[in-house]
Amino acid sequence: MKLTKQEFIIRQIAKTNKKNFENYVVTRLVHSLNTDEVKFLTQQYVKRPNGHALTDMYLPQIKLHIEIDEPFHEKQLVNDLDRELDIINATNHEIRRIKITNSISELNNQIDGLTQYINSRISASKANGNFKPWNYGEEFDPNFWISKGELRVEDNPKFRTILDACNCMGQNTKSGYRAFYTSKQFENHHLWFPKFFENKEWDNSISDDGLTIKEICKISEKAENHYKRSMKYDSLRIVFPKSIDNLGFRMYSFKGIFKTDLGASSVEMVLYTEELIQRLMCQKMSPYNKHK
Amino acid sequence: MKLTKQEFIIRQIAKTNKKNFENYVVTRLVHSLNTDEVKFLTQQYVKRPNGHALTDMYLPQIKLHIEIDEPFHEKQLVNDLDRELDIINATNHEIRRIKITNSISELNNQIDGLTQYINSRISASKANGNFKPWNYGEEFDPNFWISKGELRVEDNPKFRTILDACNCMGQNTKSGYRAFYTSKQFENHHLWFPKFFENKEWDNSISDDGLTIKEICKISEKAENHYKRSMKYDSLRIVFPKSIDNLGFRMYSFKGIFKTDLGASSVEMVLYTEELIQRLMCQKMSPYNKHK
Repeated sequence: MKLTKQEFIIRQIAKTNKKNFENYVVTRLVHSLNTDEVKFLTQQYVKRPNGHALTDMYLPQIKLHIEIDEPFHEKQLVNDLDRELDIINATNHEIRRIKITNSISELNNQIDGLTQYINSRISASKANGNFKPWNYGEEFDPNFWISKGELRVEDNPKFRTILDACNCMGQNTKSGYRAFYTSKQFENHHLWFPKFFENKEWDNSISDDGLTIKEICKISEKAENHYKRSMKYDSLRIVFPKSIDNLGFRMYSFKGIFKTDLGASSVEMVLYTEELIQRLMCQKMSPYNKHK
Repeated sequence: MKLTKQEFIIRQIAKTNKKNFENYVVTRLVHSLNTDEVKFLTQQYVKRPNGHALTDMYLPQIKLHIEIDEPFHEKQLVNDLDRELDIINATNHEIRRIKITNSISELNNQIDGLTQYINSRISASKANGNFKPWNYGEEFDPNFWISKGELRVEDNPKFRTILDACNCMGQNTKSGYRAFYTSKQFENHHLWFPKFFENKEWDNSISDDGLTIKEICKISEKAENHYKRSMKYDSLRIVFPKSIDNLGFRMYSFKGIFKTDLGASSVEMVLYTEELIQRLMCQKMSPYNKHK
């Protein structure tokens, strides 16, 4: 399913619908910022030292989170969060708070002050040449990455389907449904689309710093064979874990290139560590036509 | 339950929550009008020649309704509407439409144009001396009517409880739970709090023009006695029918002074017609302390 920018914005706002004050604050911010250059997400999960937390609004371009504090509704850390969700690392991000008070004019003053602050942050970012206007269309477009020519983890490349990621990587295939492909373009590389959440057969995860992948095969009869096979594949893995974005849509984000840690792995757990290659050259090919 | 103005506004907006575009349009209008002088209601039922319709937003001070037209969601007339609801007569009211299109900037342009139009209507109304800023606090305050000194149907007086209405009328009582009181202040008057919706015992209603009340007693053994009693009461009835406002709260609004139509009534149906007294002097007394 492909959403238009309008649908995306409307759905982000709709996520606040069950919480009336949140809906009021978020809509006032959105309508008074009054620009489609600034991306916003609502109810974004972020990593915390002791679990995960939800921030009410997140402006990724300026790394600003907005928390809406309702009296008597203290926010809880979530420990048993669904690991399938897209959870971002918010280290060094800024948090601003809106305190819900009983006066609507006082509340409006707070929100309008925050709007001014956000506008000043964006102006500063533009003045520094660091501001990249929100280009909704390119976010999940493999052709954007193909024409850019490289994937860098820091640019947060992501794809809606395995097929899109495969074809960005030059596989030139018509269907994508497997979790593991031998790369046609990059010698001694595989494309890997793991699930970093527990399922029937696997319990795989990536460390919070993004540098180590743990792979646990839960079916003991298969674990030994898998371990032996992994030791044999002395290749580099281009890793696109599956996750669910904050509107509930599937995505595969590029998390880097990993190599099997032959020394530290065991039948119980195979480990992969990130190579310090932070980018990967995309297939130089003419844009491909996505299947709908 | 008494809502603050902030709670009232938040709840009006919250009513749009299940409809994402409605929520977007209403919040943009509210935030860009950016005034608490202008009252708005969402999802207001209005009378139509062939039934009832719902308008998405209603600004009573300038008698303007806003309809948000989503493609493929044609609005239906409602014929079997719950008569307990507060349904307004919108004759001579203006309707403006917002058409949901696929472009968010085009949608914003439409809404911002409507904001300008509303502001110009309010300015004109202020210039004419006709604009009365929204005073939330006085809307259901019996002391407001007491100090004003009179009730007029056209001013839309309304009360949250029978007690409030009784004491505004000088009953000086501590509890109000009956539907019929002999007036202590106005000779040969009764206070009547009827239900204009069908219930176990009665099926009473008021005509669309507000001039005739029909009273049908559904319990045949009681109907004759009731008819005889009504014929005997050759008094004036000060009528405050019970209804439910658009947030689901009970209210009693003043609908005028009615007299039994002795000639047209029968055992089957007692009729009351409005006296051409459009106002009623409130009790001249010091403000009373409402029971919470």
